[in-house]
Amino acid sequence: MKIGLIGSGTVAQTLAAGFLKHGYEVMLGTRDTARLAAWQASNPEARLGSFAQAAAFGEAVVLAVKGNVAAQALRAAGADNLAGKPLLDACNPIADAPPVNGVLSFFTTYGDSLMEQLQCEFPQAHFVKVFNSVGAARMVNPEFKAGKPTMFICGNDAGAKATVTKILDQFGWETADMGAAEAARAIEPLCMLWCIPGFQRNLWTHAFKLLIE
Amino acid sequence: MKIGLIGSGTVAQTLAAGFLKHGYEVMLGTRDTARLAAWQASNPEARLGSFAQAAAFGEAVVLAVKGNVAAQALRAAGADNLAGKPLLDACNPIADAPPVNGVLSFFTTYGDSLMEQLQCEFPQAHFVKVFNSVGAARMVNPEFKAGKPTMFICGNDAGAKATVTKILDQFGWETADMGAAEAARAIEPLCMLWCIPGFQRNLWTHAFKLLIE
Repeated sequence: MKIGLIGSGTVAQTLAAGFLKHGYEVMLGTRDTARLAAWQASNPEARLGSFAQAAAFGEAVVLAVKGNVAAQALRAAGADNLAGKPLLDACNPIADAPPVNGVLSFFTTYGDSLMEQLQCEFPQAHFVKVFNSVGAARMVNPEFKAGKPTMFICGNDAGAKATVTKILDQFGWETADMGAAEAARAIEPLCMLWCIPGFQRNLWTHAFKLLIE
Repeated sequence: MKIGLIGSGTVAQTLAAGFLKHGYEVMLGTRDTARLAAWQASNPEARLGSFAQAAAFGEAVVLAVKGNVAAQALRAAGADNLAGKPLLDACNPIADAPPVNGVLSFFTTYGDSLMEQLQCEFPQAHFVKVFNSVGAARMVNPEFKAGKPTMFICGNDAGAKATVTKILDQFGWETADMGAAEAARAIEPLCMLWCIPGFQRNLWTHAFKLLIE
């Protein structure tokens, strides 16, 4: 399966390397290919391209940019290049403000998540919230003593969620499907919670697990 | 240690029984003692009283009422009866609206949690957010195959958090201290996430765990 990634920061690079490890064909979309020279040298089988080229290349598309430029990045990628495809949304609606006692500010409200805003603007893409509440260090095949961590996902398209669940299986995660896009209102704030130990104690390698039985 | 509970619903009854089990003296504060006849019969060592009597009785006070009447309940309890005491805040800012695809509405914003609002109105009480993201079935000495669940707490007073941590140890929880009161902005929405499997699949017995190592 071909994966196009929109974004070229640490999260995008980490996920791209994870997809390569698991046998996917990968194109990383960036505005600045020079920035990716070192990453490309370590991952020679990856393609580089523009946001639009990466989106067109992917049978599934990963969005991994800062939340406040997410809509702009998708516009550059082009709605036609996203239509009908699973869109793995790893973004968080973090406002441009310093954390307060380790707590980030969001530019959204409890009643209108970033993913819902993006889904509304790009109705033909099949958004799935995923990879928004874990750091790059533990995104791909993380190991913890108490077992697999849980990735909370949501989205309106069952087929896209099935694709994402298969990817999460390969990436070593348990998947907790929280339902439709509105659940992003509850999943996005996990990012705020996850970041607190980071800002307070420089702990960036933890993850959440849902205990059921 | 004496515990006064403000509220008499399922959460208050469950926590009160847990405190009795662990050797605390307990007074349950209610507006309607008749409602508690059955509970009192099963827990004859518990005292019943008004909100003010329960708050005055407790060396620590538990607030377990609907979030939209939390401030009103504390006013009835009386600020003087709360001053200088750990105040275990188990409330959530759930709005009077039906869930949307299993997702509750909150009457707060990402920048102003319920606990911060209450702390602001009752500055002499030492609020600690706790017990807001688990159901009554698993509040007291829960057992899960993957080990102890994690309770995320926060508050401005270190002594109050130490008291709560000791209680959580007895109640069978790992404690994750997320820092000052602002962290309630990230802990309260765990309630939204926790309730989704309940509304969608009638699953009300799960809990969260923080994986660190």
